[in-house]
Amino acid sequence: MTAQAGQPVRLFKKVAVIGAGLIGSSLLRVVKERGVATSASAYDASDAVRNRLRELAICDTVSDTAREAVEGADLVVLAVPVGACGTVAAIIGKHLRAGAIVTDVGSVKGSVAADVAPYIPENAAFVPGHPIAGAERSGPDAGRGDLFANRWWILTPLDTSPLDAVDKLGRFVEAIGAELEIMDTEHHDMVLAITSHIPHLIAYNIVGTAADLESVTKSEVIKFSAGGFRDFTRIAASDPTMWRDVFLNNREAVLEMLTRFSEDLTGLRKAIRLGDGEMLHKLFSRTRKIRREIIESGQEVAAPDFGRDQGAASGDAKAEG
Amino acid sequence: MTAQAGQPVRLFKKVAVIGAGLIGSSLLRVVKERGVATSASAYDASDAVRNRLRELAICDTVSDTAREAVEGADLVVLAVPVGACGTVAAIIGKHLRAGAIVTDVGSVKGSVAADVAPYIPENAAFVPGHPIAGAERSGPDAGRGDLFANRWWILTPLDTSPLDAVDKLGRFVEAIGAELEIMDTEHHDMVLAITSHIPHLIAYNIVGTAADLESVTKSEVIKFSAGGFRDFTRIAASDPTMWRDVFLNNREAVLEMLTRFSEDLTGLRKAIRLGDGEMLHKLFSRTRKIRREIIESGQEVAAPDFGRDQGAASGDAKAEG
Repeated sequence: MTAQAGQPVRLFKKVAVIGAGLIGSSLLRVVKERGVATSASAYDASDAVRNRLRELAICDTVSDTAREAVEGADLVVLAVPVGACGTVAAIIGKHLRAGAIVTDVGSVKGSVAADVAPYIPENAAFVPGHPIAGAERSGPDAGRGDLFANRWWILTPLDTSPLDAVDKLGRFVEAIGAELEIMDTEHHDMVLAITSHIPHLIAYNIVGTAADLESVTKSEVIKFSAGGFRDFTRIAASDPTMWRDVFLNNREAVLEMLTRFSEDLTGLRKAIRLGDGEMLHKLFSRTRKIRREIIESGQEVAAPDFGRDQGAASGDAKAEG
Repeated sequence: MTAQAGQPVRLFKKVAVIGAGLIGSSLLRVVKERGVATSASAYDASDAVRNRLRELAICDTVSDTAREAVEGADLVVLAVPVGACGTVAAIIGKHLRAGAIVTDVGSVKGSVAADVAPYIPENAAFVPGHPIAGAERSGPDAGRGDLFANRWWILTPLDTSPLDAVDKLGRFVEAIGAELEIMDTEHHDMVLAITSHIPHLIAYNIVGTAADLESVTKSEVIKFSAGGFRDFTRIAASDPTMWRDVFLNNREAVLEMLTRFSEDLTGLRKAIRLGDGEMLHKLFSRTRKIRREIIESGQEVAAPDFGRDQGAASGDAKAEG
């Protein structure tokens, strides 16, 4: 609110966003709303998305090539799936203007750093980044100007990232309403493996398991999903390509965290088999506290049931009759 | 809304609710709001809860013993943890009036049927039941009169349950705004194992795993929880005693479903290890459809992110500044 209400902070002359899905289109919206750049251009590999972008009018120019989009840009944001960052960098690298800052928004930083850095010329800067924000919807219509508000945006500078570029990108992150965090790529990938990648993996997994049962029909799973299952389907509805790329590119950290998860699950299975109520009660009491801490930290709503039945009622397919 | 607006349907003279937690107190509220009983009494084993119930004034009588609460009641609802149902039944069995209907709200039906049935006299009826509704909060203050609205309420009649009692209880379920479903105890326990018990188990498990890591601090887990982890903490904040009892009493079905879940997870792990992007993309695309079906069935809100950032904003600890 502060940045919107006051004088706009024009940090860049031209921001180019490559990839206009949920994240890219949200970024275009907030850049426009908050006036942090004089102009914004966008490119997306899909004809349909480019056409839709023109209709939405959330940026000044929709380019027909990535090369055209980045021409003259002093900030270039790669908002494509993790596995596509290297390809895009190879295309745009030679066309970056001197002094341009390049960043990305991928959920894996080690592989993106390795894939992109070789294509960035010496007179430009590359600072990998990752906003911890998202939703289960994809595409340019799903974007929202407030998607990053009050959310962490992690930058993982490389040894080759110039300090002034890191500093300027940090100010950009704050100007669009996000909270800045700096860490190294390796630690980022470990933190995200447990806070995001494993949760998505087990959500995808249980939804798949439930759909394949013979003893319980899929329609029963759907019908009685309010018992807990439906919570998992939200993140299991995330973009398949983006998530395929995350798992292929953060393999080591994901496999390590998955080992921990499976070890603990084996312990729980044993407690159930042996009827060890004390062990179960102890774990279930500990985990309750963590949600309270997340709510206190401002990263979750305090309303019960995520506030589902209050404000979200308008989006409800079946209202109480 | 229909039942509230029209003439109240007084199905029972006296409803007795034993246990006034989230479910019991919600039931008391809706019974009062919709006038489905001439009077309602309640008992809870906790002095503090009984005192709070008197302050809340959501029932006509708060009794100091379970025996006193059920005296003269034509409907008795056991709203205690699954593991306590047998104990309560042993206490109240001899004091039930002729023709009384006894039901429960437990998430496991096989064990409750076995534990409770022996204590129900021949001139009373026992029809096990289970509303598929809940929230991560517990206690009499957490209850809401609309908790069961548009939610399924499963009855699992036994061979010994008189048909007229099943029918009357079914009308009660509908009169309080829930949707009636009938199935047998064994199938119920299998359906709930996958739609509710396993989701809770893996949510408890991942929250525990995350808290115990050495490579990622607990404060980092909390800080970056918006990447997916926070979704799991909601159900991992459910009542520890209730859930301990669920796992101890639905052991067979839970262990069977857990085996399926683990087999599938092993397959996913292998796909990640081998870099099998096609397998991952195929699963992630399938699971997306299931959420859509749950929303279409009316069991989930359509708003992205559960509508968290809209209606729930008032409950948010840290508003955008």
